[in-house]
Amino acid sequence: MSDIVDKLKRRFPDQTSTAPALLEQHGVGETYHPSFPPDIVFFPTSTDDIVTAVKLCAETSTPIIPFGSGTSLEGQISAVHGGVCIDVHKMDNILSVRPEDLDCTVQPGVRRHQLNESLRDTGLFFPIDPGADASIGGMASTRASGTNAVRYGTMKDAVVGLTIVTATGEVVKTAQRARKTSAGYDLTRLLVGSEGTLGIITEITLRLHGIPEAIAGGRCTFDDLSSAVEAVTLCMQCQLPVARLELLDELQVTAINQYAKLSLPEKPTLFFEFHGTPDAVRESAERFRDIVEDCSGREFISETDTDKRNELWKARHAAYYAGKSLIPGCVGLATDVCVPISNLTECIIETKKDIVDMGLTAPIVGHVGDGNFHVLCLFEEDDSDALNRIKTFNEKLVKRAIALDGTCTGEHGIGTGKMKYLEMEIGAAIPLMRQIKSALDPQGIMNPGKIFSPMAEA
Amino acid sequence: MSDIVDKLKRRFPDQTSTAPALLEQHGVGETYHPSFPPDIVFFPTSTDDIVTAVKLCAETSTPIIPFGSGTSLEGQISAVHGGVCIDVHKMDNILSVRPEDLDCTVQPGVRRHQLNESLRDTGLFFPIDPGADASIGGMASTRASGTNAVRYGTMKDAVVGLTIVTATGEVVKTAQRARKTSAGYDLTRLLVGSEGTLGIITEITLRLHGIPEAIAGGRCTFDDLSSAVEAVTLCMQCQLPVARLELLDELQVTAINQYAKLSLPEKPTLFFEFHGTPDAVRESAERFRDIVEDCSGREFISETDTDKRNELWKARHAAYYAGKSLIPGCVGLATDVCVPISNLTECIIETKKDIVDMGLTAPIVGHVGDGNFHVLCLFEEDDSDALNRIKTFNEKLVKRAIALDGTCTGEHGIGTGKMKYLEMEIGAAIPLMRQIKSALDPQGIMNPGKIFSPMAEA
Repeated sequence: MSDIVDKLKRRFPDQTSTAPALLEQHGVGETYHPSFPPDIVFFPTSTDDIVTAVKLCAETSTPIIPFGSGTSLEGQISAVHGGVCIDVHKMDNILSVRPEDLDCTVQPGVRRHQLNESLRDTGLFFPIDPGADASIGGMASTRASGTNAVRYGTMKDAVVGLTIVTATGEVVKTAQRARKTSAGYDLTRLLVGSEGTLGIITEITLRLHGIPEAIAGGRCTFDDLSSAVEAVTLCMQCQLPVARLELLDELQVTAINQYAKLSLPEKPTLFFEFHGTPDAVRESAERFRDIVEDCSGREFISETDTDKRNELWKARHAAYYAGKSLIPGCVGLATDVCVPISNLTECIIETKKDIVDMGLTAPIVGHVGDGNFHVLCLFEEDDSDALNRIKTFNEKLVKRAIALDGTCTGEHGIGTGKMKYLEMEIGAAIPLMRQIKSALDPQGIMNPGKIFSPMAEA
Repeated sequence: MSDIVDKLKRRFPDQTSTAPALLEQHGVGETYHPSFPPDIVFFPTSTDDIVTAVKLCAETSTPIIPFGSGTSLEGQISAVHGGVCIDVHKMDNILSVRPEDLDCTVQPGVRRHQLNESLRDTGLFFPIDPGADASIGGMASTRASGTNAVRYGTMKDAVVGLTIVTATGEVVKTAQRARKTSAGYDLTRLLVGSEGTLGIITEITLRLHGIPEAIAGGRCTFDDLSSAVEAVTLCMQCQLPVARLELLDELQVTAINQYAKLSLPEKPTLFFEFHGTPDAVRESAERFRDIVEDCSGREFISETDTDKRNELWKARHAAYYAGKSLIPGCVGLATDVCVPISNLTECIIETKKDIVDMGLTAPIVGHVGDGNFHVLCLFEEDDSDALNRIKTFNEKLVKRAIALDGTCTGEHGIGTGKMKYLEMEIGAAIPLMRQIKSALDPQGIMNPGKIFSPMAEA
């Protein structure tokens, strides 16, 4: 390893670092997983830089770990076998914006807020919102989604095409810019969600959307979780064109009240948004109010005025850090599952029961319009007993979701954290995935130790 | 080959045929490509039947060609190296419909009209409409789309998950039923559009949509093609939520008038539909009328009444057979390309110029909301000179589309007909596709001679 470290340092003296604190920080995401620092961090400024680094690594079978903004949650950026971390944050140029085609091309280090900021004058926006101000490259790699996915889809839908550097250092463009194509295998969709194990993304062409003419947004509360989920289920089954539909359980609301000094009713709460013409969003919000009232919901507020709407939604945006503040200085294990909408009530209610029965501090937040929800399980740093109980809880949650025809992760990915659950979920498909991995990366240097369990990798 | 033919006949006496006419019919789609008949046609009734056949074929390295409804256009079902045609038309069961989750699971031989017929009572429909009454398995294999794609997406978006039989006879489910997932590689999207070269699809889970409460549909005409395309471009750039937006050039309208005994103005014509609430579709149609009038369009008619709307649209549905009737008894080379919307005007106008300059009889029909259009080039069966001129025209068209950042095929696929154009379009990506192909089908028995040019396959 010292060989490749020296070579990279000599070749890129101003774009490499082996400072211990920096290595440590690059070995862990926003996650409870232990840090596995890389041997060196490399900061490319171009696709060519990445080609050079990949070729050097390929010569010596050195692991390569792509790094965006470090906000992944399942250990995707851990250098479990050491190696070269390729941190793309200097590749943050918006290469072109084409309002006339509703698309743009960006480098992987561009952050989503940066992109939306720069789009402001075009009347367009990039809708994928995973919470963190993640990099576009990282979002593509983990097939991220978030609050807007129920209307605008996930990164699978947002990415038109990619440029990648393969494991052998070739530069490959996966698709042209047409809105649809039947030309050969869908390499774009294969790369999206492959967590850096098949190649390094160096350019991303994204579909954009018009900023809606009007937005109706608001919230409402329920006496119990099952009524709230029932309202979600009905909303989806009636196909109300909801743009965001977020559930917070009462513990999450308590956390937000404490954290943001608010006084929301500490009950299961839904936040919603409708996007469209002024008449359409008002009509949709009215229909949704009827559903909410049928499900014994109350305190229904909907606003179209931007400031008032933002005020209502502020609480939702604070959810993650508010949750973590429930136990000061704690660590959080953030897990997520996604089930068919008709199974959502069962999945959430049983999960909530587990949280109570096991005495966990674990608020629930869900992109429930998609059947997707998160549990943030909190524990004190060195409390290995608590961590073990949480792992047991997580396994039970995941098994339940799979039994309900759902997935072990709706948007966080597999990383190192959910490898065994991928096997439970679609075990028969894993040999195919491994064959693809071996074909495109025969040396196994691209982000090794992710997605597939290491035992069988040998 | 006689060995496998005998084995299959013995094992499945009532489910195999070697009748010459049947073989001939199974070696060609709705296409100008010559027929390459298989050595035997097998009619499985279950996934297990397919497993048995694939294992027999794998033992003897025999080519396997999946066959749905025989409506593909680029030679996807030609048995270019002989082998076993697996005709799935007896696997036409709708296995389950789950209105509460807006999805269903079907066998590959289910036809799209059959599916929509059976969904009628649920208030749901399956929107993908490639024109032909194609099988769902075939539509998945070619990543089909059609008139509704501008609103509802393509088969890439419609397929939730697949069950496939691999080249070694394993049964693999690619995904659970959750609306979104980040669990491992997106095998579903890799298989969709792989034209039978990676595995045989035996079950498909599809996303369904609510039949819209209201539909406004109509048509309008233009004095010239460029004004019509300009109206399309503006409609898309203003993000009017159009559900269908179809262009017919004046020759296509002439053909329809002759074929269906209508008297439409023989001018470039747009057909459109908006889906939504009664107020919303009326509002959208009004906005569209403004755009059309700004582009000097005229004879704008929009109807929400079902019968009147169907009457207006009837002409569009007759397009393909009407086109072919321009030269009685002729053969048609149907080609399609797709470009970014801002390049659509240039691509269509230049193409029309070529048609005129080269003296071709070739109506244009386009799913222009997506930037996708077709040219149906007609010629008499034995007129090899005409065919050569048409091939020259097609190559010019495809090269133009690629130069405009588009694709050589928006929805027909590569098959045998567009292999060299795939190389022109994304040549650097082909080695990756080939590596995937070799990894999943090391013997090369799954629909060989498709997508990748045979020369380099050796």
